[in-house]
Amino acid sequence: MRRVVRGSWALVFAVALVTAAAAEDPLPSWKDGPAKQSILDFVKTVTIPGGPDFVPEPERIATFDNDGTLWAEQPFYFQLAFAIDRVKALAPDHPEWKEKEPFKSLLAGDLKAVFAGGEHALAEIVMVTHAGMTPAAFEKIVKDWIAIAKHPRFQKPYTQCVYQPMLELLAYLRANGFKTYIVSGGGVEFMRAFAEKVYGVPPEQTIGSTIKTKWEMRDKKPAIVREPAVDYVDDKAGKPLAIEKIIGRRPIAAFGNSDGDLEMLEWTAAGEGARFCLLVHHTDGKREWAYDKESKIGHLDKALDTAKAGGWTVVSMKDDWGRIFAFEGE
Amino acid sequence: MRRVVRGSWALVFAVALVTAAAAEDPLPSWKDGPAKQSILDFVKTVTIPGGPDFVPEPERIATFDNDGTLWAEQPFYFQLAFAIDRVKALAPDHPEWKEKEPFKSLLAGDLKAVFAGGEHALAEIVMVTHAGMTPAAFEKIVKDWIAIAKHPRFQKPYTQCVYQPMLELLAYLRANGFKTYIVSGGGVEFMRAFAEKVYGVPPEQTIGSTIKTKWEMRDKKPAIVREPAVDYVDDKAGKPLAIEKIIGRRPIAAFGNSDGDLEMLEWTAAGEGARFCLLVHHTDGKREWAYDKESKIGHLDKALDTAKAGGWTVVSMKDDWGRIFAFEGE
Repeated sequence: MRRVVRGSWALVFAVALVTAAAAEDPLPSWKDGPAKQSILDFVKTVTIPGGPDFVPEPERIATFDNDGTLWAEQPFYFQLAFAIDRVKALAPDHPEWKEKEPFKSLLAGDLKAVFAGGEHALAEIVMVTHAGMTPAAFEKIVKDWIAIAKHPRFQKPYTQCVYQPMLELLAYLRANGFKTYIVSGGGVEFMRAFAEKVYGVPPEQTIGSTIKTKWEMRDKKPAIVREPAVDYVDDKAGKPLAIEKIIGRRPIAAFGNSDGDLEMLEWTAAGEGARFCLLVHHTDGKREWAYDKESKIGHLDKALDTAKAGGWTVVSMKDDWGRIFAFEGE
Repeated sequence: MRRVVRGSWALVFAVALVTAAAAEDPLPSWKDGPAKQSILDFVKTVTIPGGPDFVPEPERIATFDNDGTLWAEQPFYFQLAFAIDRVKALAPDHPEWKEKEPFKSLLAGDLKAVFAGGEHALAEIVMVTHAGMTPAAFEKIVKDWIAIAKHPRFQKPYTQCVYQPMLELLAYLRANGFKTYIVSGGGVEFMRAFAEKVYGVPPEQTIGSTIKTKWEMRDKKPAIVREPAVDYVDDKAGKPLAIEKIIGRRPIAAFGNSDGDLEMLEWTAAGEGARFCLLVHHTDGKREWAYDKESKIGHLDKALDTAKAGGWTVVSMKDDWGRIFAFEGE
């Protein structure tokens, strides 16, 4: 009898603990409203065992764009900031760059002239800054840069310019049995240098654009070397194609912020059963930036129309996020 | 006092359970000997917390070749058996094949003539049997075939022609915190149709050769279509390059059986800290097949020499495996 009583107390205690945990808000930086509610509803829908839209854990794949969705992308992509800093660091060994575009303009601080060179100019910059070394050496270069570089507006490390509500969302989904992936137009090995630490997303769940690699023996030791040639552009239709190739399962939830994410969202939405598609809309010119149809970076036009027509969740950063960055108010 | 006594009993009981579990042989189909011992020693080495060669769980990546390493590959690759059966099934819709090589020879049962056509002939067969449909449609075709096709010698489904010792090894590694990957020259979507059920390896941990895919809208619905063109050959140096591209971590253990696995094993062996490389050597002409340097399928020559020089584990199927297939002795 005594044992039964003690057992009952233990049960009461356990139930109290569980209830307290459930009462905690998993998304504290999200304001109460339809966007937040749509996330909570979806997760509930797919995780209730025996429910009509229950999804087994291995199939709970969620894919996230990175630039503009998980971290900021203004005044220009952070990977480009890395490349620019890298050109400056390498310039002393390349006196010829003083006379050669796009390096000449870049070193003179004239980014407009660099961009005027179009894709070819950017490709040249990417190639000299991202190729010719092993992946391990490149990782070290990125990590060293990430450790000291600061965002020009916020004067914080780039890895702090991540959206606090999205960090909470990643953790919330994982706590509910989701496998969270990054599927970004950014370079995969650039992102892998920080994605695990910053987002909790391991290298094997980080998918991005790639450059070609080469196998060679160096001093009788095998080496992989990054080549100055684009291998795969993980943008637009490239996103669902990479998802199919690498993950081999259709996501049940996808998150983006621009027309480059449209096909990934469409692919996700077109699957059977409960689906969740979300667009981050940059509407907060004060705390972050406000841009969509007219912006070259994070161009959001057709995807916004499709989201509205399809009933996807559109997050207004201004209205739906109580806090954008963890450093806000410091 | 009574509580203390009961607590002690619980502790004794728990310890007894753990001891019993540890005493159970995790690799019962492996004969006691150096090969089995090398596996047990390696796993112990990398999993002892605080030990000099401890490896954190996320970095415990193990990669397995498939054909000849996890399942048999004689009298020819099972995926080729699938392609042949598929050509026969499609033949009624292709009367022109009666006069067109390599289909004419294949339909006449003259495989020697088909093989004489070289890579070009095989590519033609792969293209008509593996392309032109969505991945989902292809998966269904493979699953339907797997369900009824029988291995010509064993008269068992191909998915039973898997090596029992390797199934135990996969499970043993996973029980010790390893993430097990397939890295095979076989088609990735062919393998994904059975790898999760047969090996416990999910689609996203199955890496293989790929054909090109295309994104298109069909009746306003997004579709991915398999194209008749090779995208990536996941063999030889293609294996470590795919590992770096897709996993982004160097394996600490790798398993193969042919020269096609050499670069993957070399890449694994060249990492820092404890490493484990294993070759399955087909030495059992009675229960399976005996072949190595002279065989076109599963050609094992340079990798065998490298294994011996590098102190890798070489498994003699005849001497090291007490049981090869689960159906043995039925």
